[in-house]
Amino acid sequence: MKTLNLNPQTQSDPPRIINPLDPEEFKRQGYMMIDFLADYYGNVGKYPVLSNVEPGYLKKLLPSTAPLGPEPIESILKDVKEHIIPGITHWMSPNYYGYFPSSSSIAGFVGEMLSTGFGAVGFNWISSPAATELESIVMDWLGQVLMLPKPFLFSSNGNGGGVLLGTTCEAFLCTLVAARDKKLSQVGTHNIGKLVVYGSDQTHSSLQKAAQIAGINPKNYRAIKTKRSSSFALSPDSLLSTILLDVENGLIPCFLCATVGTTGTTAIDPVGSLCNVAKDYGIWVHVDAAYAGAVCICPEFRYCIDGVEHANSFSFNAHKWFLTNLACCCLWVKDHTALTNSLSTNPHYLRNKASESKKVIDYKDWQITLSRKFNSLKLWLVLRSYGVDNLRNFLRHHVEMAKTFEGLVRLDRRFEVVVPRNFSMVCFRIAPTAVANGLPNGTKFDPIGKILNDKHYLVNEVNRKLFDSINSSGRVYMTQSEIEGDFVIRCAIGATLTEENHVIMAWKLVQEHANSLLGAFKNINCTSI
Amino acid sequence: MKTLNLNPQTQSDPPRIINPLDPEEFKRQGYMMIDFLADYYGNVGKYPVLSNVEPGYLKKLLPSTAPLGPEPIESILKDVKEHIIPGITHWMSPNYYGYFPSSSSIAGFVGEMLSTGFGAVGFNWISSPAATELESIVMDWLGQVLMLPKPFLFSSNGNGGGVLLGTTCEAFLCTLVAARDKKLSQVGTHNIGKLVVYGSDQTHSSLQKAAQIAGINPKNYRAIKTKRSSSFALSPDSLLSTILLDVENGLIPCFLCATVGTTGTTAIDPVGSLCNVAKDYGIWVHVDAAYAGAVCICPEFRYCIDGVEHANSFSFNAHKWFLTNLACCCLWVKDHTALTNSLSTNPHYLRNKASESKKVIDYKDWQITLSRKFNSLKLWLVLRSYGVDNLRNFLRHHVEMAKTFEGLVRLDRRFEVVVPRNFSMVCFRIAPTAVANGLPNGTKFDPIGKILNDKHYLVNEVNRKLFDSINSSGRVYMTQSEIEGDFVIRCAIGATLTEENHVIMAWKLVQEHANSLLGAFKNINCTSI
Repeated sequence: MKTLNLNPQTQSDPPRIINPLDPEEFKRQGYMMIDFLADYYGNVGKYPVLSNVEPGYLKKLLPSTAPLGPEPIESILKDVKEHIIPGITHWMSPNYYGYFPSSSSIAGFVGEMLSTGFGAVGFNWISSPAATELESIVMDWLGQVLMLPKPFLFSSNGNGGGVLLGTTCEAFLCTLVAARDKKLSQVGTHNIGKLVVYGSDQTHSSLQKAAQIAGINPKNYRAIKTKRSSSFALSPDSLLSTILLDVENGLIPCFLCATVGTTGTTAIDPVGSLCNVAKDYGIWVHVDAAYAGAVCICPEFRYCIDGVEHANSFSFNAHKWFLTNLACCCLWVKDHTALTNSLSTNPHYLRNKASESKKVIDYKDWQITLSRKFNSLKLWLVLRSYGVDNLRNFLRHHVEMAKTFEGLVRLDRRFEVVVPRNFSMVCFRIAPTAVANGLPNGTKFDPIGKILNDKHYLVNEVNRKLFDSINSSGRVYMTQSEIEGDFVIRCAIGATLTEENHVIMAWKLVQEHANSLLGAFKNINCTSI
Repeated sequence: MKTLNLNPQTQSDPPRIINPLDPEEFKRQGYMMIDFLADYYGNVGKYPVLSNVEPGYLKKLLPSTAPLGPEPIESILKDVKEHIIPGITHWMSPNYYGYFPSSSSIAGFVGEMLSTGFGAVGFNWISSPAATELESIVMDWLGQVLMLPKPFLFSSNGNGGGVLLGTTCEAFLCTLVAARDKKLSQVGTHNIGKLVVYGSDQTHSSLQKAAQIAGINPKNYRAIKTKRSSSFALSPDSLLSTILLDVENGLIPCFLCATVGTTGTTAIDPVGSLCNVAKDYGIWVHVDAAYAGAVCICPEFRYCIDGVEHANSFSFNAHKWFLTNLACCCLWVKDHTALTNSLSTNPHYLRNKASESKKVIDYKDWQITLSRKFNSLKLWLVLRSYGVDNLRNFLRHHVEMAKTFEGLVRLDRRFEVVVPRNFSMVCFRIAPTAVANGLPNGTKFDPIGKILNDKHYLVNEVNRKLFDSINSSGRVYMTQSEIEGDFVIRCAIGATLTEENHVIMAWKLVQEHANSLLGAFKNINCTSI
């Protein structure tokens, strides 16, 4: 800062005022931060992926009150290195395979810089026309690349179009509220307690949360059971029988979420057949492709969202697997008036001629919040900096690496791939046979004596121990899933820096930890890599 | 990019894969963007503040489809300069006085860079412990600086604490859902249609929207009328009589929003007295100090939130007037279990030992969405880089500039300050007397002949024309308010780059445009500056 006030205010000596956007200081600190992050990306593969700090660690390291005087950026960055980085779980690490990874790229990063730097708040058109217009253009670009049906695009000149939200939770909530109010306009507001929301037991928990927020009676949320025999996809027959029972009980079907690429196992719900069931009951169908939507830009994966032409809305997260930094959820709707009927506000302090002309979009009426960043910049930069062909190949490369990992799992007969791999995520575990064969007599995994009699529990415990063991090593981070009661390890490939050598290393690590966990495996024909 | 794929994929020549986080390329583009933005801050005062593009301008300038191949950052930045910047309404301009400004600083910007760069998604503690812990620490720091009562702080070891959300709309929705479910747990879920939400006619429109989203019957939203005689603050008597009528009609009072610094006129609701009324009916009281909360860090303004000790929750936007780049809404609650009871999810893929130990906070259960950025970094950097004393003086400086502007308005007898100035915003207009005296005979402002007989309409039209005229000049941007049917111009000082000379220039501009609008003012004793 050029002018920092280091003295208390006095009558004779008025306080000097800081200049928090001085261009020269901006450059100095900006370069410093770029260098810091470039260095971080160069070294992030060496850090323990999963932070191993204890709860409350940071409170012991930082002061308990805010400083009264200024501190130089150098001291702050020192604290970031010494105190913050050890407490970060490194989502940017090439060895990160947890949850679904958080996507990132130079284009996404510098796009975010531009958006943050302009500080434009694009709630309505007039508040920054470029923010609204670029968003509409980019959503049409991306919609075309995804081969979304024309009614979802602005260029069809109907009621369709796309909007950038933060996360899928917001996409759920916005479309659910729109569906709710559309239905209530037919059946009366007093019937809110009768509305039913449908998903499967594999649908993301955010749907249930959105239903709760929207005032849907918690008893009217249906997590319809899926089966291994149909690869954990939601069966249209199950949907129909659930609906029929609800209707018989005087309830009112309202909203269905079909998922393409579930969080647990990347299962693919049959969008078209589900829409077919839903349409007879006037149910709004939302297609949630939060993770897998990205790869549907590749023609060979586009079939996964077939049937979307019969749905009401579709969303995917560009921040999951599309090189666009968090947060960036892309939502398209066929009829935006359903959204705006529920979400519009028109206070006097926001009125303006452009809005009154009805020639412009005011995105505030397509979302929960009023304020919004110029988020289309980062998506625009990603699409232009890399181009659609490179993006396709980049995603295919992740799928190839997942195939490699899957192949390695299958080569080791101690392990099993638990569900068929659809995209870039592999669900695996130590197989029950290996647990039974490989254990030295008398092994106990818990103080409770009955364990060895409960094989299912034991298999889960062995896998849980393998999971804890590989994650505690700090050399990879994977997260878990539960499939029909089985504890399963998920290896989700999608971190930007991950290369094939990391994936092979990850598998070797899993094997090493399995070796020491399971002991000698002389009886088992185990192919090592 | 080191390795861009410029060739279509062939069997013999596998596609080269881009490296979207190459550290050297990251540096090159990062520096370029820093230079670009430093230049922008150096020149933003010269741009027309309000963009003057026509609806649909950008569609004519950009391709209608996404590029298949990559484009260099230089071409993209050229387009940003030539096509995007003309379409931006420059919230960062020193001549920006619209809505409430969007705050920004070097510390906020580099903090956002760090958060974006780490890409850590801190939905639960384990997913990045530092993100959760720094947030709790910084929220306690800021809570102490605001002299929030201890029950709002983590350090009290009760159920209180703070969380960073995106916007006030989210703070409304989270607390409203918590209040709704708490009430429904007493009266039964089937009574959702009877719950009533209270605000004033000055409360931000986001409250009504949040109520709509949360499934509150739209008929049960009360915008209680305020009066000029009480400076547009919500009167406890009016609140009480509204509640009594609702209770008489079998409705159930649930939630009240008290505002400190309303959007229309920066009115201050009497928090303590309102809480006193609310407590007898078990109403959750949220204090919304979105704009004015920041300045309450100055002891001389702290009285504005007196009574907050009796409220359930309090929020302000650090992105409005606290040098923290969008988005950053700070919410404190006394009882976080009310939030987590409504907003918790616990799917198998998120389970972990730290959460099960109950020794950590999982902020996903304090907010609408699951994913969340490491937003406390930017607030931490703002507090440390500037220090509390400098922040206080910076805000005081804005208030002083608003006093200057107010003084200039009062010196010109053609104008009036419409409501008392409380903080850094001045509501003014051309006074009815000036309109009556200053108009040449026969002046018409509309093709409809009756206008000159409708003085109220005429005064509004004159002010609307002044408003359009100054904003069309591109030299300032102010927005409007409506006070008891009067059209009023709001001059909200708070853009980071605004200095006293800009404020004086802004007033001169208003006078110039008033001169040419009102014609010769020989009869009026008008003091010019």
